[in-house]
Amino acid sequence: MGIVLGPNQYGKAETRVVRIVRDTPRHEIRDLSVSTALRGDFTAAHVEGDQSQVLPTDTQKNTAFAFAKSHGIASPEDYGLALARRLLEAAPSATGATVRVEEYAWDRILVDGVGHDHAFVRRGGEVRTTEVDVSTSGAQVTSGIKDLVVLKSTGSEFKGFLRDEYTTLPDADDRILATSLAATWRYADAVERDWNAVHDDVRTLVLATFATTYSRALQQTLHAMGSAVLEAHGEIAEISFSAPNKHHFLVDLEPFGLENPGEVFIAADRPYGLIEATVCREDQG
Amino acid sequence: MGIVLGPNQYGKAETRVVRIVRDTPRHEIRDLSVSTALRGDFTAAHVEGDQSQVLPTDTQKNTAFAFAKSHGIASPEDYGLALARRLLEAAPSATGATVRVEEYAWDRILVDGVGHDHAFVRRGGEVRTTEVDVSTSGAQVTSGIKDLVVLKSTGSEFKGFLRDEYTTLPDADDRILATSLAATWRYADAVERDWNAVHDDVRTLVLATFATTYSRALQQTLHAMGSAVLEAHGEIAEISFSAPNKHHFLVDLEPFGLENPGEVFIAADRPYGLIEATVCREDQG
Amino acid sequence: MGIVLGPNQYGKAETRVVRIVRDTPRHEIRDLSVSTALRGDFTAAHVEGDQSQVLPTDTQKNTAFAFAKSHGIASPEDYGLALARRLLEAAPSATGATVRVEEYAWDRILVDGVGHDHAFVRRGGEVRTTEVDVSTSGAQVTSGIKDLVVLKSTGSEFKGFLRDEYTTLPDADDRILATSLAATWRYADAVERDWNAVHDDVRTLVLATFATTYSRALQQTLHAMGSAVLEAHGEIAEISFSAPNKHHFLVDLEPFGLENPGEVFIAADRPYGLIEATVCREDQG
Amino acid sequence: MGIVLGPNQYGKAETRVVRIVRDTPRHEIRDLSVSTALRGDFTAAHVEGDQSQVLPTDTQKNTAFAFAKSHGIASPEDYGLALARRLLEAAPSATGATVRVEEYAWDRILVDGVGHDHAFVRRGGEVRTTEVDVSTSGAQVTSGIKDLVVLKSTGSEFKGFLRDEYTTLPDADDRILATSLAATWRYADAVERDWNAVHDDVRTLVLATFATTYSRALQQTLHAMGSAVLEAHGEIAEISFSAPNKHHFLVDLEPFGLENPGEVFIAADRPYGLIEATVCREDQG
Repeated sequence: MGIVLGPNQYGKAETRVVRIVRDTPRHEIRDLSVSTALRGDFTAAHVEGDQSQVLPTDTQKNTAFAFAKSHGIASPEDYGLALARRLLEAAPSATGATVRVEEYAWDRILVDGVGHDHAFVRRGGEVRTTEVDVSTSGAQVTSGIKDLVVLKSTGSEFKGFLRDEYTTLPDADDRILATSLAATWRYADAVERDWNAVHDDVRTLVLATFATTYSRALQQTLHAMGSAVLEAHGEIAEISFSAPNKHHFLVDLEPFGLENPGEVFIAADRPYGLIEATVCREDQG
Repeated sequence: MGIVLGPNQYGKAETRVVRIVRDTPRHEIRDLSVSTALRGDFTAAHVEGDQSQVLPTDTQKNTAFAFAKSHGIASPEDYGLALARRLLEAAPSATGATVRVEEYAWDRILVDGVGHDHAFVRRGGEVRTTEVDVSTSGAQVTSGIKDLVVLKSTGSEFKGFLRDEYTTLPDADDRILATSLAATWRYADAVERDWNAVHDDVRTLVLATFATTYSRALQQTLHAMGSAVLEAHGEIAEISFSAPNKHHFLVDLEPFGLENPGEVFIAADRPYGLIEATVCREDQG
Repeated sequence: MGIVLGPNQYGKAETRVVRIVRDTPRHEIRDLSVSTALRGDFTAAHVEGDQSQVLPTDTQKNTAFAFAKSHGIASPEDYGLALARRLLEAAPSATGATVRVEEYAWDRILVDGVGHDHAFVRRGGEVRTTEVDVSTSGAQVTSGIKDLVVLKSTGSEFKGFLRDEYTTLPDADDRILATSLAATWRYADAVERDWNAVHDDVRTLVLATFATTYSRALQQTLHAMGSAVLEAHGEIAEISFSAPNKHHFLVDLEPFGLENPGEVFIAADRPYGLIEATVCREDQG
Repeated sequence: MGIVLGPNQYGKAETRVVRIVRDTPRHEIRDLSVSTALRGDFTAAHVEGDQSQVLPTDTQKNTAFAFAKSHGIASPEDYGLALARRLLEAAPSATGATVRVEEYAWDRILVDGVGHDHAFVRRGGEVRTTEVDVSTSGAQVTSGIKDLVVLKSTGSEFKGFLRDEYTTLPDADDRILATSLAATWRYADAVERDWNAVHDDVRTLVLATFATTYSRALQQTLHAMGSAVLEAHGEIAEISFSAPNKHHFLVDLEPFGLENPGEVFIAADRPYGLIEATVCREDQG
């Protein structure tokens, strides 16, 4: 029974590409972390150490920078598609190329209430993501948001759950619901579209649904958010969520003669609940 | 020559206090990390293990939660002063109490353009800080901002510097200037004031000065920011900055037949320049 | 075209379980981070918010602690199998349970050259991992090591690679090869065995192969390590590696009149090469 | 009342210097993070942006690399002293230079029980530190260890402490004592000595004292460790500790019909106690 090479890929990870558009005095900035990978028949490199079919990760990095200039970065998706197509083309032994992008948002610094031309403050908070995969069988784009930390101070319960001999949790009628949301949505196809507009709209829908849905559990909230996105965006085939339940425990103030009707909480780090779910269209389930 | 106990303090660090104000349907949230410490004559605890004068760190944590309810959190400074005074009072052997607070900002989630009553999204970006020190000789408040990441895509040079035999850096006429700013300002006194308003105004001044000052070096930018704050705020005695120079190196695209007139950069992690400076009033220098 | 629930799971992540065995004065310690998850038909919880089939993540955490006492922790694998089986049993709607464990190693503190009975120092360095999956179709165990940082100061080259118009990297005849290795090996079955002994032996093999293999590329080194493990361990079906190429760049000291024949390097953080490969048996490829 | 420049310094932080000694086939490795800073009269740079007295941080980094070759790294202290003296000399306006070094330890990979000539595995765990300060008034060396995580599974109590109305903590007769120790010791002078030997011996003393001292509180343990070091090392003027009390809470297993006599704990992240103390000689107190 022989030993063989299984699935493999290689690339350059977390190249920090910063692109300034300075065609006019009012500069624009795009700030990305770009990771690329090639997969395919690289058996010779693994088994014999023969690099003749290996496009170096250093070259992949160079290409990422060159494309930031020559192609530009209209959106992470558009840039990622161009970059992935180029890498696949440049490596004849590759059968697929993946480009993952994280984008960090910057706001213009306000001076007397007006956004400055070339001074920016990093927005912080959530990160915009995309993963573009191009192979001989086509292109796929899966975009997302991560580190979107949201909290509801009421409108959330958790009760009527299954109990066994290790269950001590009491029913909760009114609790804090908080999570650091990661969402990724897969587009039905990779045709050119206004990727930025879809991103903004999905973000708005996810946040609004979180806010306005009375939550019987984080699972239900995720499902409602996913459904809202799929209903509004026919171009999205499915959406997945990974959501840590960031527990906020009500502090017992009774020993100090104080009531605590949902006012003072300790935010816990670990452990945390972790809820993962995909919402999809029936024919893709 | 005997061995003796030198400076010492003890306390509870990073208590995550979340306070919801729910007196009306429109909730407010304050999200803090609170660290407390007591110092004084605790020789018996160190040398003999006698705890009779040691107010446990667990009690300090309880007090932080109880005061979040009973005193409330109008501002980190106001809350910190009340908490420090209480801790000093509760521990007869203590000669001083310190309370350090980090505050994480939340925005209301927008639903159809309107901020929701009880659903929030964490703003990310910079953290508001304060350190309150109360001792038998009075109270001192040092407030600040950290993790305020700013960038200028032009309007920054670095040239004419000292050269020795290890110098290879060329003059730069037009570079990216970026830093993750930490600023702390010490108030001349601890009398009650609108701490939130001062914080907001210092932040605005620091950002606007960063944006509008042509920079010959990060040092000069820090000095300009500090001067602007001291000029506008007589109640601030001094302001200190710690500013990593987050290098953005221009990528050489010439091998690929591309020009790069300040458009494509690699953002470097380490090493980084680190500039630290205090700006103060003449009589306090 | 309806919207439906796709793959989903939920559980408690990163429960920090510390187990002291104190049956004799010579204590033993096992220090784990335990993450559990259940998957199955939880549509009612997602769509209607009906929790009646949901065993709370809090209960999963309680079970993890209870089993640390009642079952004990002979190895992460043995403990994980018992815990996963229990969770699957406790949740009638679940079709599968996953337990992931990280173990942090401690050494006895040496006092006059002898390991102390109940005082320990955390070893640091690599983390031992396992992922146990139990479903109606059987159990699967995938164990591993992560954060195993290794470096060769010679015996590594990278040359003869594919070149395109974005390639600037020169051939390297003698370079530093360094990586932070993550390896996971899937056992052919989950029958009881000496999991600790296999872990130790795989670790030894991986390190020795890294040391003694002349490396034409990181890919080749990974393949050699994987082959060595599969040859020695018939009970292992396949082994996968994820290996960042932690670049160490030779510093140009020529401007300072100094030679640098492979002696002074700068260790870079980002970007890094990322090589991923699986080595498996022919019939499982 | 004028606005003036107060204390200030600038330098290059976290330069990752890796030095291979390959004079023989048996290589040695030293792996450092080096941070340098200059202070002095740099008013012109801050106020007018005049850089003519500013030795760039880039030059400081170059010097760190050049000295790794020309001076070598016999110990972090020896290297740091040489580097600090050079920097002070190179910048006429500087009145002081500081070099901070972190060192990461590597072990040789064992092949058939023998340490390999040029293959290493990073040890992990604690980091060796030093801070060297050279000014016109002399040199000072403060060395240390950080991230030294230690734990006692018995032999630790905490009781008889001060109580107030916010105290709920019960006395503890037998608890886990765990901390991530940072220790720094200041040498009485900077004369040449075997810095490596002192480091090793202090580490051994600190660990052994932790192990063998019955602890009435973490304060007492720190004091005992400090006293042991000062008693054994006349060349050390004082030693300071910063020690988070990493709480391990006994898990209540009674609801599950299980006893828990000090066997199953949850390791908590935050909040944590934080104990800081200096032990010094009487004439330096």
